[in-house]
Amino acid sequence: MSYKALTLSITSLFAGCLLQAQNNNLTQYVNPLIGTAKMGHTYPGATVPFGAVQLSPDTDTIPYAGPDGKYTGTAYRYCAGYQYDDPTIVGFSHTHFSGTGHSDLGDFLIMPTTGQLQLNPGTADKPETGYRSRFSHSNEIAEPNYYKVKLDDHNILAEMTTTTRVGVHQYTFPKSDDAHIILDLMHGIYNYDDKNTWTFVRIENDTLITGYKQTHGWAKTRTVYFAMTFSKPVQSYGYAQFKKQVYQGFWRRFNVTRNFPEMIGQNLRAYFNFKTEQDEKIKIKFALSPVSTTNALENLRTETPSWDFAAIKVKGQQQWNQELNKIQVEALNKEDMTNFYTAMYHTFLGPTVYSDMNGQYKGLDQNIHTANNFTNYTTFSLWDTYRTLHPFFNLVQPQRNSHMIQSMLAHQQQSAHKMLPVWSHYANENWCMSGYHAVPVVADAIVKGIKGFDYNKALEACITTANVKYYDGLDDYIRLGYIPDDKRGNSVSTTLEYAFDDWSIAMAAKKLGRNDVYEAFIKRSQNWKNVYDAAIGYMRPKLSNGSFKKEFDILSTHGQGFIEGNAWNFSLFVPHDPKGMIDAMGGDKKFLPHLDSLFSMHLPDEFFAHTEDITREGIIGNYVHGNEPSHHVAYLYNFTSQPWKTQERVRMILKKQYKAAIDGLGGNDDCGQMSAWYIFTALGFYPFAPGSETYQLGSPAIKKAVIHLENGNTLTVDTRNQSDKNVYVSKVTFNGIPVKGTAIDHSKLIAGGELVFYMSSKPTK
Amino acid sequence: MSYKALTLSITSLFAGCLLQAQNNNLTQYVNPLIGTAKMGHTYPGATVPFGAVQLSPDTDTIPYAGPDGKYTGTAYRYCAGYQYDDPTIVGFSHTHFSGTGHSDLGDFLIMPTTGQLQLNPGTADKPETGYRSRFSHSNEIAEPNYYKVKLDDHNILAEMTTTTRVGVHQYTFPKSDDAHIILDLMHGIYNYDDKNTWTFVRIENDTLITGYKQTHGWAKTRTVYFAMTFSKPVQSYGYAQFKKQVYQGFWRRFNVTRNFPEMIGQNLRAYFNFKTEQDEKIKIKFALSPVSTTNALENLRTETPSWDFAAIKVKGQQQWNQELNKIQVEALNKEDMTNFYTAMYHTFLGPTVYSDMNGQYKGLDQNIHTANNFTNYTTFSLWDTYRTLHPFFNLVQPQRNSHMIQSMLAHQQQSAHKMLPVWSHYANENWCMSGYHAVPVVADAIVKGIKGFDYNKALEACITTANVKYYDGLDDYIRLGYIPDDKRGNSVSTTLEYAFDDWSIAMAAKKLGRNDVYEAFIKRSQNWKNVYDAAIGYMRPKLSNGSFKKEFDILSTHGQGFIEGNAWNFSLFVPHDPKGMIDAMGGDKKFLPHLDSLFSMHLPDEFFAHTEDITREGIIGNYVHGNEPSHHVAYLYNFTSQPWKTQERVRMILKKQYKAAIDGLGGNDDCGQMSAWYIFTALGFYPFAPGSETYQLGSPAIKKAVIHLENGNTLTVDTRNQSDKNVYVSKVTFNGIPVKGTAIDHSKLIAGGELVFYMSSKPTK
Repeated sequence: MSYKALTLSITSLFAGCLLQAQNNNLTQYVNPLIGTAKMGHTYPGATVPFGAVQLSPDTDTIPYAGPDGKYTGTAYRYCAGYQYDDPTIVGFSHTHFSGTGHSDLGDFLIMPTTGQLQLNPGTADKPETGYRSRFSHSNEIAEPNYYKVKLDDHNILAEMTTTTRVGVHQYTFPKSDDAHIILDLMHGIYNYDDKNTWTFVRIENDTLITGYKQTHGWAKTRTVYFAMTFSKPVQSYGYAQFKKQVYQGFWRRFNVTRNFPEMIGQNLRAYFNFKTEQDEKIKIKFALSPVSTTNALENLRTETPSWDFAAIKVKGQQQWNQELNKIQVEALNKEDMTNFYTAMYHTFLGPTVYSDMNGQYKGLDQNIHTANNFTNYTTFSLWDTYRTLHPFFNLVQPQRNSHMIQSMLAHQQQSAHKMLPVWSHYANENWCMSGYHAVPVVADAIVKGIKGFDYNKALEACITTANVKYYDGLDDYIRLGYIPDDKRGNSVSTTLEYAFDDWSIAMAAKKLGRNDVYEAFIKRSQNWKNVYDAAIGYMRPKLSNGSFKKEFDILSTHGQGFIEGNAWNFSLFVPHDPKGMIDAMGGDKKFLPHLDSLFSMHLPDEFFAHTEDITREGIIGNYVHGNEPSHHVAYLYNFTSQPWKTQERVRMILKKQYKAAIDGLGGNDDCGQMSAWYIFTALGFYPFAPGSETYQLGSPAIKKAVIHLENGNTLTVDTRNQSDKNVYVSKVTFNGIPVKGTAIDHSKLIAGGELVFYMSSKPTK
Repeated sequence: MSYKALTLSITSLFAGCLLQAQNNNLTQYVNPLIGTAKMGHTYPGATVPFGAVQLSPDTDTIPYAGPDGKYTGTAYRYCAGYQYDDPTIVGFSHTHFSGTGHSDLGDFLIMPTTGQLQLNPGTADKPETGYRSRFSHSNEIAEPNYYKVKLDDHNILAEMTTTTRVGVHQYTFPKSDDAHIILDLMHGIYNYDDKNTWTFVRIENDTLITGYKQTHGWAKTRTVYFAMTFSKPVQSYGYAQFKKQVYQGFWRRFNVTRNFPEMIGQNLRAYFNFKTEQDEKIKIKFALSPVSTTNALENLRTETPSWDFAAIKVKGQQQWNQELNKIQVEALNKEDMTNFYTAMYHTFLGPTVYSDMNGQYKGLDQNIHTANNFTNYTTFSLWDTYRTLHPFFNLVQPQRNSHMIQSMLAHQQQSAHKMLPVWSHYANENWCMSGYHAVPVVADAIVKGIKGFDYNKALEACITTANVKYYDGLDDYIRLGYIPDDKRGNSVSTTLEYAFDDWSIAMAAKKLGRNDVYEAFIKRSQNWKNVYDAAIGYMRPKLSNGSFKKEFDILSTHGQGFIEGNAWNFSLFVPHDPKGMIDAMGGDKKFLPHLDSLFSMHLPDEFFAHTEDITREGIIGNYVHGNEPSHHVAYLYNFTSQPWKTQERVRMILKKQYKAAIDGLGGNDDCGQMSAWYIFTALGFYPFAPGSETYQLGSPAIKKAVIHLENGNTLTVDTRNQSDKNVYVSKVTFNGIPVKGTAIDHSKLIAGGELVFYMSSKPTK
């Protein structure tokens, strides 16, 4: 049976029926399986909001590149460890990215087995050759903070739940004299030879194991510590070592592979043997720490003092309900309810907590730091998330966002480069993607008055970041006003991104009265003009000599000077100066049909073939929603004489790109960025240019939303005459007063009140 | 010119002249070059007493085993990194063992060069192919805490000194536009592929570098952190990477090998470029930490706030003088003065400090711990040092010894095995050698009333240690009273060692009134009888079935059931029951000629060939002084009717085995054990069985010694009619009262007073 048949098509049951969200019962609308097929790269396992542990089944892991050493679509398949159409589960590991286009995690895989001990995972087509197991989706349940599956080959029921820093497993065994729990310390998502650099394991006593693992991957040097405890004493245990030790010395006197309480090496698997009665439950509490096994144990003891699996599950689900209830929506149908709350679920999966109960965490200098007065976070996929996710946090999670900003400021202090994060995870900068998009996150928070961090220090961190001359063409950019394409790839998209980021610095400086900084950066923000070729109406690679590159393809995404986007899409990337851009492109009359054609044109397959991280469904015409550079594009009509086309387009994108189905996401969810786009757009307003407090108004897809703000105010979004056909907005009022134009400010909204959209089936021209 | 010619033969200059030690000027009698040729395995570099940094030249390093994978005498050559007859210096590294038979250190090699940058060390026969340099002993000076050498190939004068945790380099350059300082992070003593597991380097600013290195060697997992600072800003810098990185990702956008402020990988070398004027000095302060680069930097700033090289040198030499002045001797000649104080110098080289200025250190669980109310120490070569070095500390360094015991107790708590150290270094148990000889160290301190640790907890740690059943035959030993030779190598020597260690537990228990423990362990201490074969008069391997092994060679040291000793020597190893042993061997009359023959027999070359860690000169007859198991043997005559033979033998051994020459040590100094034997023996009394407070009296070699005890008392050892010929003792008095028998108690001596030996050229029979 294909996963398509399993698509949650309960829409029909609820068609036409308005559903009101019930407080404390919103998790029912979250389906963690959405996005687990194809390119969504979400994981179905258990976690709490922003939890450090993501305990989820891995169905396979493959090398980061194909046999030819090149990236392919297939190579990206296992970013989240789980692909819905896979037939077997390898085990359950404790760390997962949500929706990324790359991976590095999958730490500490646990697999319960019965029968002959097997210490290799085996293969999906011959699961009996290893410890992995077949499973069936009919025996699988995924809820927020709860995952359950039957492991058919071992006749074991696996259940899992979590707290912030602890994964809790519950395995129901058959009667067996030969029951095992495998702890695979080699396992990793995107694994390859020599990725694991070091492993250390100690059997502290017959129920407590500690250790750590170091990897060299996307994060150049990453260490994760653990403490795990069994609900039942281990009868015996052992290890398998998959790389010869270079030196044994006097350790030779021991049989270190059996019942020897410590093991050290590059590639290890451990196993623990038990005898079980029929239906006997063996539980595991598995705590993580970025700092030490001592801290992991403290996390374990503090967060999970009991063995009450059900209570831990319920507590985590209550946390989810508390977060989800920050926006209580009425939607047109259950599918929209599922889309909305699953999107909200996705937005609250990360960044993840990266400090221990005692506040300690590892910094980029690999030293231990203490987060004073904030919780430290990691996994900042900023090229994605600066656009909509962090602005969303400024609306519904301002305190958490300020902690995230404090985490980024600490990162900057601890960085050898004194740069704010580009793409950071687990005390590492992996430099993924381009720009310095922590800057608009910081600027957006300053401009929106988010409390909890030092604005002037934050501005200085932005300025420093924007002046690290060896970073990705920045020296040339500062000197010439653009990055010469003959000197560096992605020269145009990076120039455009720098220009936008620079503008956000100017905005923050303006707010803080730093006119010198404002002047310098507002000037830099105009650099987009340097790569605009008026002759063809597109942004275009420019060479060192000042001329534009001759060979140039506006549809191709590779080698044309742009990252994850073609020139066609990226030419529209001037979010900080849309009017300037439209003027440059010939003004309203010329620009409108140009923009229209984006959505209506046919993108030949040859160009799609190289588009990264998205399925064919992630593209509408040549509009690529599955990658981020176009996320503001549908709102560009607001700056033209036809804003009703924004309303039409965004409702169309919501319908086409987000489905309450296993394969419902057309591209990587990208750490919640795609989902945050959904939520804002469904609510009817969108942070077009982070660093500005102005939202662009679109067309709400929900019937009503009550947003409970952290400042105690309530913002209600209400619609009149809402339906799937009435996608046009004829009027908007805020607290009864008509809103002029197509925008409304953040400060106005968070003062509380009622934003009413009057919907119509016809545009108001 | 061979090193033999360089032997310090200044004896003649001072012959017959009595020298009195001058307070504050004893370092003049220390020659750190003694033992640096052949098997002494001492290092000539700079360090302070018990210093964490041993900054010393490395003349080469070789794999831990020969090409055939087997240990050979040659393979052991570079334990201390320096061999006197080598023609070149590779550079100066910061950690060295003193006198061991194995190595694992040589961390962070610094080498200044001029001319073309070279990033490989090159070879000794072609030094111009690498960064190493030729040197001449005529341009070399080694003093306590000061080492100086001219690097001929680079025309650079290198000088070094230290504080406890900081190495201070001073390089005097010629005028050069092409001056470099290499930081070789791959370098290690006993290096081999994959020994270095990980390296992390950060250029914090143009004078400060931090980082760490992890190795997998004798210590299974060892991490050393550093912070280094230059006295002059670095002009430019770079790295060479000697192992391909498995994953580069977006780091590709940088030229990470030039002026990029961080580098991570398995095998790295870094270089720093300068321009220098003629005679310009570039200084380096290089701090170590077992915990973090933060701590290393704090150590650096606290211990070496200034750049005053001379002042740091003088301060360290004052520390040496303070320690050396604890025993002020008058010797018969300058050679004896040099022997005595160089021996004292060697005894105070280790164990070494292993906690930071803030008290933090890494424990065996690889977590960070804080040493409260003690300084943490590492490098416990206990099979060697329990015999004489720690008893020596109980006499002149009781507080430090109590800190060492607290360090061992912390080790026991942090150990996965809950065992006291066997051979531990840098937060690792390397399990080297046999027995559990931390136990007699603890017991000796309890019996001698050394203050500063909890006696009852310490006793419990000893009991726990003596019951780890999977440790080296201990299960069988406890069950059968001996280790069956068919089940485990070194069965006899280990049985004998356990029996002795058990006796020491009994002694401590007796002192603490724990009669149950006393009874249990005094019984176990008699287990030596189980491996004594009365039929042949030797200890002999016994099989599981209770019969002695048939094939058996009393002279061979390999595969006969003994470690680092043959059956002949090891059969005398019952220090806790010498009378019982003599009785078992047929009583006084039969035993005396037997013991005499040990010193007079000829050991055929075939047996010497396999004797470890010693030169031919380290053997007298079949008496092997270069290895430890016989260190008590010369004192065995005290338990016979001919104690004068002890006097004769020990004076002969002092003369034959210790010479004030570069090649003056006949075997490994073994972390000060050989030197401690020298000191006690030269003073005229010896801790025959640690765990007892009784010293056996021998024949002092000095003229007079004033021992300044920590309790404020003074113990004076004086001789009458002393000369090289008057080796026999006709009478001993303590505070004027004749000492009966051949022994005197520790408690008596530390009450202070005058121990007078009346010397004679003829034995008192």
